[in-house]
Amino acid sequence: SAGSVVLVGAGPGDPGLLTLRALRALNEADVILHDRLVSAEVLDLARRDAERIEVGKQAGYHHTTQDGIHALLLRHAQAGRRVVRLKGGDPFVFGRGGEELEFLREQGIPYEVVPGITAAVACAAYAGVPLTHRDHAQSVRFVTAHCQSSRDTLDWTALAQERQTLAVYMGVAELGGLRARLIEHGRAPSTPFALIENGSRPDQRVITGTLANLAERAAFHAVHSPALLILGEVAALATSLAWFGQPP
Amino acid sequence: SAGSVVLVGAGPGDPGLLTLRALRALNEADVILHDRLVSAEVLDLARRDAERIEVGKQAGYHHTTQDGIHALLLRHAQAGRRVVRLKGGDPFVFGRGGEELEFLREQGIPYEVVPGITAAVACAAYAGVPLTHRDHAQSVRFVTAHCQSSRDTLDWTALAQERQTLAVYMGVAELGGLRARLIEHGRAPSTPFALIENGSRPDQRVITGTLANLAERAAFHAVHSPALLILGEVAALATSLAWFGQPP
Repeated sequence: SAGSVVLVGAGPGDPGLLTLRALRALNEADVILHDRLVSAEVLDLARRDAERIEVGKQAGYHHTTQDGIHALLLRHAQAGRRVVRLKGGDPFVFGRGGEELEFLREQGIPYEVVPGITAAVACAAYAGVPLTHRDHAQSVRFVTAHCQSSRDTLDWTALAQERQTLAVYMGVAELGGLRARLIEHGRAPSTPFALIENGSRPDQRVITGTLANLAERAAFHAVHSPALLILGEVAALATSLAWFGQPP
Repeated sequence: SAGSVVLVGAGPGDPGLLTLRALRALNEADVILHDRLVSAEVLDLARRDAERIEVGKQAGYHHTTQDGIHALLLRHAQAGRRVVRLKGGDPFVFGRGGEELEFLREQGIPYEVVPGITAAVACAAYAGVPLTHRDHAQSVRFVTAHCQSSRDTLDWTALAQERQTLAVYMGVAELGGLRARLIEHGRAPSTPFALIENGSRPDQRVITGTLANLAERAAFHAVHSPALLILGEVAALATSLAWFGQPP
């Protein structure tokens, strides 16, 4: 009989942020291809005898290539197995979920998608930052600044607009360049930020400050990946609305 | 003993998209203050003897004012009850979660926040639209165009940029005005859209087309709220990657 693939968003790390559908998919899986960043607590919720294969990427190098992941998906689905492709966060927000579905569709493999709590939404909730508080922001924009090519082609003037919240999925190494470009394009140096390390996990840390001192604050506190940056007037609320873990 | 409030995102409607934490909060609640749009299937997961109070807003008029919601939260928490404030989607994405937390903090009421799957993420997953597919988009921006004041002050030039995905939380009445402003500010009339009605629910419908015929396509198919608009090159993938409900 034909196998199938369920593309599942695992959320940010706290297993309590899995959806009921994600839990069911993990319970029914024969094999789980998971990113490196999916937490052990989440994997513990899978069927005991499911095969687990780590296919994650690490910053800087690829553990398994995208083509390699496609080949694994195909091989296991063609063997009639129920495959779960488990990704951190949501599969369609800076995942490669779209590419994997295009490949499966070409190959005629049936699939479903289970959305997950993406890092920006999780970190905002756990840091007390209302992303679109109507007194301060009209929109929220999710952007990544991981690779040189994306940094060079982003419309920095649009990113530097006031009254919008930016949620930046990024490595902490890029903070200096991000600050320089945003200020150069008109964002006020006094714009508040909240930088959330290990969002939703017991060791969550929230570092706050202004765009002017972003890189120095991050360096002083030795913030490491995974971290999410929220930039905009709403980030100032992290101080007054904090409820989880160490206050900033 | 002191009561408390858990601000919970209920997701888009499919009860399978509740998180495990949200389910636990519903199981432990003494009283649930819920928006009108939270589905009956979600409310069915709450403790049998929990008091349910609908405080939702309907487009056009307010069923309970924001001040009225604050007063209810305070009264029940001060009575020592475990209060769940249940909102559609995520509490911090076009909810009023921030305002409610500010009020609770002022009043000294302890609270927690449980994020939810916001409509854009849910609709994208169920319509097969990879929001940030790297071949087509560098960012995704969530915006609302519900009220006149927000439409007048939005930076339409930034919204009309290429290579970004827009997810518009809106009433279907505003589609003509949205199209006019985006085209006027430079977005190509050939930009694909996917308009998702009742996203993730059994009666989900996905209408596709281009910005040029957005209002007419929506009117022809009599699309009604709640609906979410995804605009950008990635929306064209809704046709090839569809897997849930009626294909577009």
